[in-house]
Amino acid sequence: MRPFADRLIEAVRDYGPLCVGIDPHPSLFPQLFGKPSAGAIAVWADGIIEQAAGEVACIKPQAAFFEIWGSAGMAALEHVCKTARDAGLLVILDAKRGDIGSTAKGYADAYLGENAACPCDALTVNPYMGLETLTPFVDTSAANGRGIAVLTRTSNPGAADIQELEVDGDPIYIRMAREFHAAGACLKGQTTSWSGMMLVAGATAPQEAREIRHAAPDNLLLVPGYGAQGAGAEQAVAGFVPVNGMLEGGVVNASRSVTFPQAAQTATTVESWSSSIHDAICLARDDLLKATRLSSI
Amino acid sequence: MRPFADRLIEAVRDYGPLCVGIDPHPSLFPQLFGKPSAGAIAVWADGIIEQAAGEVACIKPQAAFFEIWGSAGMAALEHVCKTARDAGLLVILDAKRGDIGSTAKGYADAYLGENAACPCDALTVNPYMGLETLTPFVDTSAANGRGIAVLTRTSNPGAADIQELEVDGDPIYIRMAREFHAAGACLKGQTTSWSGMMLVAGATAPQEAREIRHAAPDNLLLVPGYGAQGAGAEQAVAGFVPVNGMLEGGVVNASRSVTFPQAAQTATTVESWSSSIHDAICLARDDLLKATRLSSI
Repeated sequence: MRPFADRLIEAVRDYGPLCVGIDPHPSLFPQLFGKPSAGAIAVWADGIIEQAAGEVACIKPQAAFFEIWGSAGMAALEHVCKTARDAGLLVILDAKRGDIGSTAKGYADAYLGENAACPCDALTVNPYMGLETLTPFVDTSAANGRGIAVLTRTSNPGAADIQELEVDGDPIYIRMAREFHAAGACLKGQTTSWSGMMLVAGATAPQEAREIRHAAPDNLLLVPGYGAQGAGAEQAVAGFVPVNGMLEGGVVNASRSVTFPQAAQTATTVESWSSSIHDAICLARDDLLKATRLSSI
Repeated sequence: MRPFADRLIEAVRDYGPLCVGIDPHPSLFPQLFGKPSAGAIAVWADGIIEQAAGEVACIKPQAAFFEIWGSAGMAALEHVCKTARDAGLLVILDAKRGDIGSTAKGYADAYLGENAACPCDALTVNPYMGLETLTPFVDTSAANGRGIAVLTRTSNPGAADIQELEVDGDPIYIRMAREFHAAGACLKGQTTSWSGMMLVAGATAPQEAREIRHAAPDNLLLVPGYGAQGAGAEQAVAGFVPVNGMLEGGVVNASRSVTFPQAAQTATTVESWSSSIHDAICLARDDLLKATRLSSI
């Protein structure tokens, strides 16, 4: 398979940087789809995918909300990943896995391997156990045209507890961004200069995103925190840089604002629900596209 | 359910601190059980549980080696957790989950909730996203007599990249150990003074384990790195303290040395395999029991 960085950035050039988060919160699950269950969330996610396909570059399913339903939920997650990829969407699985050696290799094989049980295009990874623990994820990705997205500076207040601590004058997220840049060199694209070693950099901290961009100039960003979590489109693309007249450099995730918009939550027919989802996706997509047009800033 | 700290330490007083790691590495899977698959690893794990029950306090399944097999692997994991608990063993699931707010609550519900799809007694948690991200795990555990084991100072070389960095004169793992101590107060036992907010502190760093014990005096330790990873029994219990004439303060995990001993790998009958597993478990258990006897040091 072609490098993930090339596949992702080509899709972003076609559709803009919106990534649709698939987070089936039980407490937000619309009545229209019945009581939440593994089967019900699969049907709901199929509906989201149908509206997202041909409109956006990628989706990001959140593993936790599938794991709640145990093995049946994991079957639903496999279904969602396969359905989305068959529909031409790239899939970034948000599972924040991380472990040592052969255990990390197990996670990499499960989601990024040639014969992955749950095949995704990229996987979010937690680097707390150190750089060596990224190697199995990077190597498996390089061999199979996949990517990873490493937690760098997350969008929640708790980021201050470890990620923002200063060591030798630099916050840890900047030290790590430099290391991730070096460690991900083998995930560089062939037709673009971007690397598929993505960095997770929250939209709620645009200045920090610019510093991360400086430390890791060719790493695509995965930006959470846009929309319901409070950041606007211009904040969300703060770590992007001009390429061919557009700001480019990653994808921006929206979950609640595009999958649980008010109009969809109260919809009484699948048609009106689908239409509300489609509207919400296109609204967020266009909002981000506008922010990436150089003439707009 | 009674507090996890009480249930675990009572079992440790009966059987010693050995925790049997259930890590079905595909590359180590014994020929006797056929080609590795979700079903084959469940049968293999049932055999380990049969030999561990009545001999040790707890088991620690490694989620990655089940996730390799997708939803079928998760069904095998659920089976293993239920079988072990029915056999009287406590189950510490090693899945190193971690995320923000409602997502963390999703993981907590999946493994520690009252109606968990995959019910465990405790779950390993990655704290890199900050202290607030532990709250859903702690609250769910407190409500259901469960516990968590937070990565504090792991046993791999990469621990140096973040966990050992010094901030204001203290390594991060010591700063975090103090915070975990405070954050886990509601997981204290009723019949013991230990807390079910366990700290993961690798056996390969005994001096660091003693410093962690000083920073977090009532937190039970989950100690990886004993056996195949290189540390001996006395190193492994370095963070334990004298209680009623024995060293006490956590559990020590052994995986490869007790589940893939040479004699078991070449066994040609289930009886000889079972006997080799039983011997290896009892050898490690007695090695650790000896190291916890105060007269031995």
